[in-house]
Amino acid sequence: MTAATSPLNERWATHLEGSRNGERVPLDEAAFMTPESGPHLVRYDLDEDKGAALRGVLPGRPWSMWRYRELLPVAAGPRERLDLGEGGTPLVRLGRAAPSGVEVWFKEESGNPTGSFKARGLSVAINRAVELGAPGVELPSAGNAAMASAAYAAAAGLPCTVAIPEDTPATIGERCRLLGAEVISGGRNLAESGAILAERKSGFWNIATLNEPYRLEGKKSMGFELAEQFDGRLPDWIFYPTGGGTGLIAMAKAFDELEALGLLGRRRPRLVSVQMAGCAPIVRAFERGDDKAEPWRDPRTRAWGLRVPSARGDFLILRAVRASGGLAVAVEEEALAGAVERLAREEGQWVGPEGAACFLALEKLVEEKTVAAGERVVLFQTGHPASYL
Amino acid sequence: MTAATSPLNERWATHLEGSRNGERVPLDEAAFMTPESGPHLVRYDLDEDKGAALRGVLPGRPWSMWRYRELLPVAAGPRERLDLGEGGTPLVRLGRAAPSGVEVWFKEESGNPTGSFKARGLSVAINRAVELGAPGVELPSAGNAAMASAAYAAAAGLPCTVAIPEDTPATIGERCRLLGAEVISGGRNLAESGAILAERKSGFWNIATLNEPYRLEGKKSMGFELAEQFDGRLPDWIFYPTGGGTGLIAMAKAFDELEALGLLGRRRPRLVSVQMAGCAPIVRAFERGDDKAEPWRDPRTRAWGLRVPSARGDFLILRAVRASGGLAVAVEEEALAGAVERLAREEGQWVGPEGAACFLALEKLVEEKTVAAGERVVLFQTGHPASYL
Repeated sequence: MTAATSPLNERWATHLEGSRNGERVPLDEAAFMTPESGPHLVRYDLDEDKGAALRGVLPGRPWSMWRYRELLPVAAGPRERLDLGEGGTPLVRLGRAAPSGVEVWFKEESGNPTGSFKARGLSVAINRAVELGAPGVELPSAGNAAMASAAYAAAAGLPCTVAIPEDTPATIGERCRLLGAEVISGGRNLAESGAILAERKSGFWNIATLNEPYRLEGKKSMGFELAEQFDGRLPDWIFYPTGGGTGLIAMAKAFDELEALGLLGRRRPRLVSVQMAGCAPIVRAFERGDDKAEPWRDPRTRAWGLRVPSARGDFLILRAVRASGGLAVAVEEEALAGAVERLAREEGQWVGPEGAACFLALEKLVEEKTVAAGERVVLFQTGHPASYL
Repeated sequence: MTAATSPLNERWATHLEGSRNGERVPLDEAAFMTPESGPHLVRYDLDEDKGAALRGVLPGRPWSMWRYRELLPVAAGPRERLDLGEGGTPLVRLGRAAPSGVEVWFKEESGNPTGSFKARGLSVAINRAVELGAPGVELPSAGNAAMASAAYAAAAGLPCTVAIPEDTPATIGERCRLLGAEVISGGRNLAESGAILAERKSGFWNIATLNEPYRLEGKKSMGFELAEQFDGRLPDWIFYPTGGGTGLIAMAKAFDELEALGLLGRRRPRLVSVQMAGCAPIVRAFERGDDKAEPWRDPRTRAWGLRVPSARGDFLILRAVRASGGLAVAVEEEALAGAVERLAREEGQWVGPEGAACFLALEKLVEEKTVAAGERVVLFQTGHPASYL
């Protein structure tokens, strides 16, 4: 195959699709969620020739999110796009703290720019915002998404406003300001912060979770990396701390895209959505058999990334978890500190509350004999604990 | 070449060598620095056949420090060795903040376990301490090395004592304790903390900078990564924040080893040793033309990693810098905060004081027309700023 005819020179993304109503939107049109459309998903034209071409070039590419560039909707090339070093995170195997006989890995996301998995999605979202001519970006955030937005907006020279709930740790606002963002501290939770932002009518693009199609695309790279790191043999279980839940939806999409490329079989990991007992709308809906989640009243947890009372993608999360044969589990606030301490002392790993929550959920499912010896499990450790101190 | 005859199945490391007196020590003997030996260096038997074999397998290996395992002295295989995800860090290109016409990259080391480049060396050192039967490990540290030691010792189940100067930010000691280390806070600087540790006569192995041969070996991986990330075309300049200076010595050693393997030509980057004006023993010795550095009296700087009044490898640092045609530069304390702020606002990068110091040193050398337009420069951003907060 010559370079001229390689499918790597084509654009694989074709259009956007409303996840609720199937509405088709041109790829390079700015598209935001409406109640009718639901979140928009980027669609690609994929086949096995493209898969073979991609498989051929991957080994020679840098270990970064951008190695999967054909499966991301960013048009800019390596010299033009914003890239702060996102993605390419390690898998770290648990030793003594792993439940007996279970092979447990942390997907350690805290080495991303601004210390969390949020960098992946916001890199793609802000790259696209630049490409499509946004005057600025804004979003409500429990913390990590605010810092990531501020960082990529700064790199782009794009104005950025973040709205964070009033009791978010002060470090978050300070770091966003250092990165040049305007910070609005107000509201008791994400929903209220979002309402404050909406009232301002700034004209900036709202890049809140699933309001635009691109953060989800960036998060897919976690799924691509898992497939590559395990050499195509995906784990039996993936435990994912679920706030907005974009990563869960995104990984399921990533695996489907790899299958369409002929790079992955039909087998899928069972997805476990992990929430805190003080804010567990997805777990409640899962247990009731509902296909969407009622907002959680008075959300309470110090696992800031999990204090999301209402996820726009609730129906997509529930669908992805159920389709995988997975489940949704809530863990107790009081157990978090002990899990953090055990992982530090027995494994040398200092994890954030979200990672600790996944570890507790695993222990619960092992105790209930849902997860069995001999199985391979990936826990997402999504953010650096120092961001909240 | 069949697997049975592949040089990848041999052990490439052959012995240790005293850097001062050429003393030869068997590879698997516990060897610590003496005034006569100087730091011990691991020596390898390298040739172009080995280089070709390594070049052949590298693309299929995970992007981690351990992809260069034949050039590291650890005997344990992937399942046995300690691995918290060290190495494999990104290069991030500067945009607006780069001096006009100069191609500037940060080697962003803060994504390493415990947030700094120290993870590379201490992973190898503690892996070897386990292999060679150490009863425990101890070291004096300005901060990052203490956290990295605590983490790998915890993963190994090995007792660990760290001694940190009394005015080190409290976060450092807290995190070391969380990771199960015993923390001794005392002494006004690294030298005094080291003396307190020595008085205890614990019997633990002292893994202070260059006291043992293995931290340097781990730091070589920064050089291997640069060679691979730039596809064998090394940058014109490397700016390195110099406390103990192990990384500078290590990268020079890494490039020599790659040359012996036929994987790199003779051309070398010019190495710039960056220190703070309040603690600049290497800069003073460089400017005086000395081949070793007098201890700095009353070291003062908030760039904690650079508050090293006396480096055991002083003569090796000066030799490596001079051999490369490089130089040593001190920057002013007052300028640090402004550099941190500029990099945050213009690049979206939140850097530590050591990374900011390298950026200031670059600006100085561009202003003096030592570094010219068209040249490619790598600055080391060695640690996560939140470790000091």
